Amino acid sequence: MLNFTLNIPTKIIFGKGEVSRTGEIVKEYGKKVLLVTGRTSTKKTGSLNKVTESLKEAGVDFVVFDQVEPNPRAETVDRGGQIAREEQCDLILALGGGSAMDASKAIATVAVSARPIHEYIRGNKTGLWKELLPIQEALPIITIPTLAATGSEANSNAVITNWEMKEKSGIAGPALFPRTAILDPELTYTVSASYTADGAVDMFTHLYEGYMTGDENANVQDEITEGLMRNAVKYAKTALNHPEDYNARAHLLWTSTLALIGIANAGRGGPFPVHQIEHTLSAHYDISHGRGLAILTPAYFRQIIKKDRPHRLARLGRQVFNITQEDDAAACDATIEALVSWFKDIGTYDTLKNVGVKKEDLKLMAEETIRVSGLGQDSIAATHPLTAEEVLRMYEEVFE
Amino acid sequence: MLNFTLNIPTKIIFGKGEVSRTGEIVKEYGKKVLLVTGRTSTKKTGSLNKVTESLKEAGVDFVVFDQVEPNPRAETVDRGGQIAREEQCDLILALGGGSAMDASKAIATVAVSARPIHEYIRGNKTGLWKELLPIQEALPIITIPTLAATGSEANSNAVITNWEMKEKSGIAGPALFPRTAILDPELTYTVSASYTADGAVDMFTHLYEGYMTGDENANVQDEITEGLMRNAVKYAKTALNHPEDYNARAHLLWTSTLALIGIANAGRGGPFPVHQIEHTLSAHYDISHGRGLAILTPAYFRQIIKKDRPHRLARLGRQVFNITQEDDAAACDATIEALVSWFKDIGTYDTLKNVGVKKEDLKLMAEETIRVSGLGQDSIAATHPLTAEEVLRMYEEVFE
Repeated sequence: MLNFTLNIPTKIIFGKGEVSRTGEIVKEYGKKVLLVTGRTSTKKTGSLNKVTESLKEAGVDFVVFDQVEPNPRAETVDRGGQIAREEQCDLILALGGGSAMDASKAIATVAVSARPIHEYIRGNKTGLWKELLPIQEALPIITIPTLAATGSEANSNAVITNWEMKEKSGIAGPALFPRTAILDPELTYTVSASYTADGAVDMFTHLYEGYMTGDENANVQDEITEGLMRNAVKYAKTALNHPEDYNARAHLLWTSTLALIGIANAGRGGPFPVHQIEHTLSAHYDISHGRGLAILTPAYFRQIIKKDRPHRLARLGRQVFNITQEDDAAACDATIEALVSWFKDIGTYDTLKNVGVKKEDLKLMAEETIRVSGLGQDSIAATHPLTAEEVLRMYEEVFE
Repeated sequence: MLNFTLNIPTKIIFGKGEVSRTGEIVKEYGKKVLLVTGRTSTKKTGSLNKVTESLKEAGVDFVVFDQVEPNPRAETVDRGGQIAREEQCDLILALGGGSAMDASKAIATVAVSARPIHEYIRGNKTGLWKELLPIQEALPIITIPTLAATGSEANSNAVITNWEMKEKSGIAGPALFPRTAILDPELTYTVSASYTADGAVDMFTHLYEGYMTGDENANVQDEITEGLMRNAVKYAKTALNHPEDYNARAHLLWTSTLALIGIANAGRGGPFPVHQIEHTLSAHYDISHGRGLAILTPAYFRQIIKKDRPHRLARLGRQVFNITQEDDAAACDATIEALVSWFKDIGTYDTLKNVGVKKEDLKLMAEETIRVSGLGQDSIAATHPLTAEEVLRMYEEVFE
């Protein structure tokens, strides 16, 4: 087990109806809040209304910034930050999926520093991020996820896309830990089948990445990770069949939060290469992050993990998909088959071509993945550094 | 899954050699520290020396209070609190097992309020605890466990014994969360076989109690709990055979912290009746808490759980001890057998008579358990409230 520091300053309020306490909770941090959300879904589903009602009841002043797009963009963040400054907001309240929550963290940063967020994004061409990360100053943030997926509600990371430069990468720092996360599973009843499934793949990927690439003497962490993966697999299916099954939605939401709260990876470390390879895809094509991960995972397992750490892939299969083969190589094949079959079952099995990716872009994207993510130098230290050629081969395998 | 609030404000610094950072960490919270520890073992093993060296190096002033006994007593706490006040200490640093850490939390309380700790202890005869709990004010606390057992290093609970009144019960409150816990597995190399085993039973009991008594729609929590139980069982044995096996000691220590950090029980709730039944034993006889739990657990499983929740006991057996019986009743019997066999294997299987308990005290202790713990009213709500007669029958079964 590696040495580690674990810090979970975000207070979590979880359960049925807890969204009605939003006003009372926000009030602890200030009088005026910038409510950051997407353009349509929180209006359609009524979540936004629930939140604004609670704010009004508590007498909290608010400004709604409802301009966050999927794969939130640097320019949107900068605009949000400016509004927070002009309106003299005391804190940022995120309502939505990973996009709204990540944008809120970035807006909270920009609102204090008045610097464009692009300067903070890891791997950007300016290189300024090397001085600016980790982020030490931001407005207080409160998160209300409406989708079980990214785990952004209770950690200090965010992913932002610079659409001009086709760069999608992370910002991070202690100031980005939300003060409180309000997790109300009922808010996720209205999530579409497609986003429910993509979200399950996102949390599953958060779990398997460190499990595959990190230190192997961390059995406590491995068993927690396996338990969470089993829950993601099990309850994704239940939630798809019964979108208003409270128990299934609660388990998915809590699994997604726990997957990235630090517990699973503390002492195991391990980079997240598949996330980084996917980020190039959604920086270029604006596809759902979870869908991109679902497309890439079989290629990553077949081309990299099956060779580098077959025993880990075999263990995942035995623990999560009840694979019984004793031989690791055979177990790896069976695991990949079981995984693909789960993806098909929940409707996330797909190809790059089908989500609109053009074949002629693959090579450029592979090269950009290495440049933006730094995967070449240090990122899969525990297995091996990836090359642009390897990334290209993965893209090619799942192209059509 | 029940609604819950999860709050883990304690920063955890875990790993080999981390104890050498004590001074630098303590310095963040003040200039003068009361170092609370036991009478002998941290001196013998050199832990105390490592800590004081680090404090000196960082230029932190310290006073050593080395009077904490096993099952720490109210009068010791009051004396420690007075010294902290007289010496104008800014914070409390605990070095030791659960006793030193629990005493530190109590001393941190008394140091601020100047009230005797007895007034705060849940269930005491004065009834003042009803107003004083949860504790909102205390000096900052930093913990350095030297034993993997109680999980006190990263939660806001402590157990204190009033020896005069034969009452052992809890104090709790947000002010008692340690600011930082320094978890250095190498400090536990010197723990005796007997304490290593008793500690493993303590963490195992922290895990099974809520699992047996809490809400049953909390599969994420159940799977995390089962994973932690498997690790306790596995690494206790390894650590007994190889006391300086870093990996085993690291896994035991991290399992003990995670068992009571809030993650396992959040959303499942569930009281800890066996802990409360044991507290009466150690309030009267000053025996090791873990040993008391090991003695009582088979009786609790046979007399209460096997009848109330056989499916839960069967599940524990299947998930933790590889029990294969499909019939729940048969699986319960096999689980209890496997448990007893594990206790025998690690040397914690014992009887009340053997640890010095007198038969004529059993009835009084059973009655006191109900009075002090409140087990009669609310404590096993999820199964059933216990009566003094039931507690007595458990004591009798494991008397000799």
